[in-house]
Amino acid sequence: MSKTKVWTAETIAIGSELLLGGRMDTNSLFIADRLAACGVELRYKTIVGDDLSDIVAVLKTAARRARVVIITGGLGPTVDDLTREAVAQATGHRLGRRKAALDEMTARLAAWGRTPTKAQFRQAMIPAGAAILSNPVGTAPGFALNWKGTFFAALPGVPREMEPMFLDGVSPHLQAWMSSQKAIHATPMIRLVLHTSGVPESVVDQKLTGLLPKGSAIQLGIYASPLEVMVSLTGPETAPEPVTMTQLCDDARTRLGDIVYGEADDTMESVVGRLLTERQMTLALAESCTGGLIGHRLTQVPGSSAYVDRGIISYSNRAKVDLLGVSAELIARHGAVSAEVAAAMARGIRERSGVSVGLSVTGIAGPGGATETKPVGLVYVGLDGGPGDAMTKEFRFHGGDRAVIKQRSSQAALDLLRRWLIKKGCR
Amino acid sequence: MSKTKVWTAETIAIGSELLLGGRMDTNSLFIADRLAACGVELRYKTIVGDDLSDIVAVLKTAARRARVVIITGGLGPTVDDLTREAVAQATGHRLGRRKAALDEMTARLAAWGRTPTKAQFRQAMIPAGAAILSNPVGTAPGFALNWKGTFFAALPGVPREMEPMFLDGVSPHLQAWMSSQKAIHATPMIRLVLHTSGVPESVVDQKLTGLLPKGSAIQLGIYASPLEVMVSLTGPETAPEPVTMTQLCDDARTRLGDIVYGEADDTMESVVGRLLTERQMTLALAESCTGGLIGHRLTQVPGSSAYVDRGIISYSNRAKVDLLGVSAELIARHGAVSAEVAAAMARGIRERSGVSVGLSVTGIAGPGGATETKPVGLVYVGLDGGPGDAMTKEFRFHGGDRAVIKQRSSQAALDLLRRWLIKKGCR
Repeated sequence: MSKTKVWTAETIAIGSELLLGGRMDTNSLFIADRLAACGVELRYKTIVGDDLSDIVAVLKTAARRARVVIITGGLGPTVDDLTREAVAQATGHRLGRRKAALDEMTARLAAWGRTPTKAQFRQAMIPAGAAILSNPVGTAPGFALNWKGTFFAALPGVPREMEPMFLDGVSPHLQAWMSSQKAIHATPMIRLVLHTSGVPESVVDQKLTGLLPKGSAIQLGIYASPLEVMVSLTGPETAPEPVTMTQLCDDARTRLGDIVYGEADDTMESVVGRLLTERQMTLALAESCTGGLIGHRLTQVPGSSAYVDRGIISYSNRAKVDLLGVSAELIARHGAVSAEVAAAMARGIRERSGVSVGLSVTGIAGPGGATETKPVGLVYVGLDGGPGDAMTKEFRFHGGDRAVIKQRSSQAALDLLRRWLIKKGCR
Repeated sequence: MSKTKVWTAETIAIGSELLLGGRMDTNSLFIADRLAACGVELRYKTIVGDDLSDIVAVLKTAARRARVVIITGGLGPTVDDLTREAVAQATGHRLGRRKAALDEMTARLAAWGRTPTKAQFRQAMIPAGAAILSNPVGTAPGFALNWKGTFFAALPGVPREMEPMFLDGVSPHLQAWMSSQKAIHATPMIRLVLHTSGVPESVVDQKLTGLLPKGSAIQLGIYASPLEVMVSLTGPETAPEPVTMTQLCDDARTRLGDIVYGEADDTMESVVGRLLTERQMTLALAESCTGGLIGHRLTQVPGSSAYVDRGIISYSNRAKVDLLGVSAELIARHGAVSAEVAAAMARGIRERSGVSVGLSVTGIAGPGGATETKPVGLVYVGLDGGPGDAMTKEFRFHGGDRAVIKQRSSQAALDLLRRWLIKKGCR
């Protein structure tokens, strides 16, 4: 994989709290994909605290190893917000208050019935020569400048401010600047993604062996997480390749078969939601060990109230009896964690709610609750679509804590529903 | 804040998939706290893909700016796992197969009834002069070495392997090496954390103004996320300070009052669980707009089956009527998103399940569903502890998407329950 003549990028996230992790970073994927579309490859990501000299040092390092540097965070009104000052110091472009930035901020605040505070005036300080990037959502403007052959852009860290500012501000400035830099050839790249469920990384790897033609510049990535194995193909948008990206992706899809549940930004819950909507079906849940996680995931999708009718979190046995009509005798005979109880839960929730399909989960998430014959990670999923159309499936999840077992159980249940819905569509 | 004579650290996370984000990083907080306990301050975090020359470059940069470098990931058996090779190349310590590493790996696999694959032999290749760090959970050993005055440790990226290896392997090696390096003085630091709920960052900031004595070396951090505002105090374990860390933390707690819901690793759900357990109370949920999220959060806590009896995800109005006994007439008169319906939901779930307390949420998570009088973000929480002991509370959450409104609603409901439980304890 030759690295010469490729535009390389680094992202720098600024904020002492970010050094401690514990937050979901959704900016990186967005930025990586948008940069790839411009022919720029994200190769480094740096996180640094709110310390001026540390930020300056990080900016200088980035300028040495990347042609494009995207900075997020540190543009707020407080004295801890040091991005403006650090860029000015690193690049030698002095800060000055810009009327255009101030006017825009004042107008936005006025629309909210407010006037700028003294602290907010700091946000209009922009390095000399930098282009101002409008913020259509918040008060902090961003900026872009070129320094010693590197393109710098500074944006707020909040995704709903960063994303439109990247699309409307960074992308056009970056493209204009790149086309003025003839030295390096940029090939717009695209990334095609497939999401698979239910099989380990090694199986996906094996099925895709030999997918790429010899000498191909297309990169294949296989990434495992507790919820799925993701396959990505990154390559030139316009193909000087023996096969096109789309052909390769179709080939990968054929090789992987029905373990592929979605592509691009699809999530399991959005795919299931789409299938339910297309079939005009409604769903009710009976969750035991997942404790509400399946309901939570499904209702993350806007519009899910059209097909999610209700859910029962039947954590106690009494709740299974009272709310789902599972017989106490059945629980006593087979145990609450059994295929029989999963089936009764799915049937019970479907019959009592009058929906098209009932989905149930019962299992041992741990760390307690295991018995001689029923280990932590033993999970049963039940599905009931009416008389003669019901099934259960047993899963044994190894090597994960309570949170991971809950996640994998929810994914397994939704995947069973997905496969059932697809078959329904073919009838 | 003087930065001289302080031990600085950098973490390097290796893996192309990490460049894209989208995963929760729990390693950083763990590492930052353990390093602080050794008197080392985490100042930089770098993420780099599975590319040998990129990793080597990143290691060299880290050696220039940090005295302690903790590398995670890239120790697996595949050709993409390049950490061993990169450290060898960057430091000039040649790789060699170590018998001790191989023996331990073979023994672990044997206990699982397996033998090492050819690929796994790679995992026993360790840079010359490095100490092997045992992996008590998985097959990949880690290692630690000193190079040009910098301490390097390489560990797997999986938290349940990384954490014990850090405690049993990295900490003792690091401490031994630091005590041999007289040039720099290390002060063991501790971090005390308070979690607050229900007020914005600016309010917390105001209440803590003047907390730190003039010239104090203790650092105060205030970090906002959609769920909470976290306060952290970082300072010397043994105090050459006018006030001790513990005194300051007590002072902060007094200033903040009952908005503090927990400390250190507490989560709202673990705190609520502890309060329910202490009072021997049981809980049932009636969730509408949160869609199961409250149940999911509560059941993340091991042992929660002792106090979480059941939950109803009453997404449709019909479910509210059928399962909670909310009258259709009440819904027609006030709307499903109203204080009246929240109260009826909480009462219904308590009465029907026979628990100590019922908790309900109804609201508009958006983006659809808003009306002239009821905007997106309008949420009602209801709590019912029996006749004469019920309440509702209205919230208006601004500026967040569906996922954020669900999160904030779940937090507001759990916080209302927390405050009610605390009062119960005082009776």
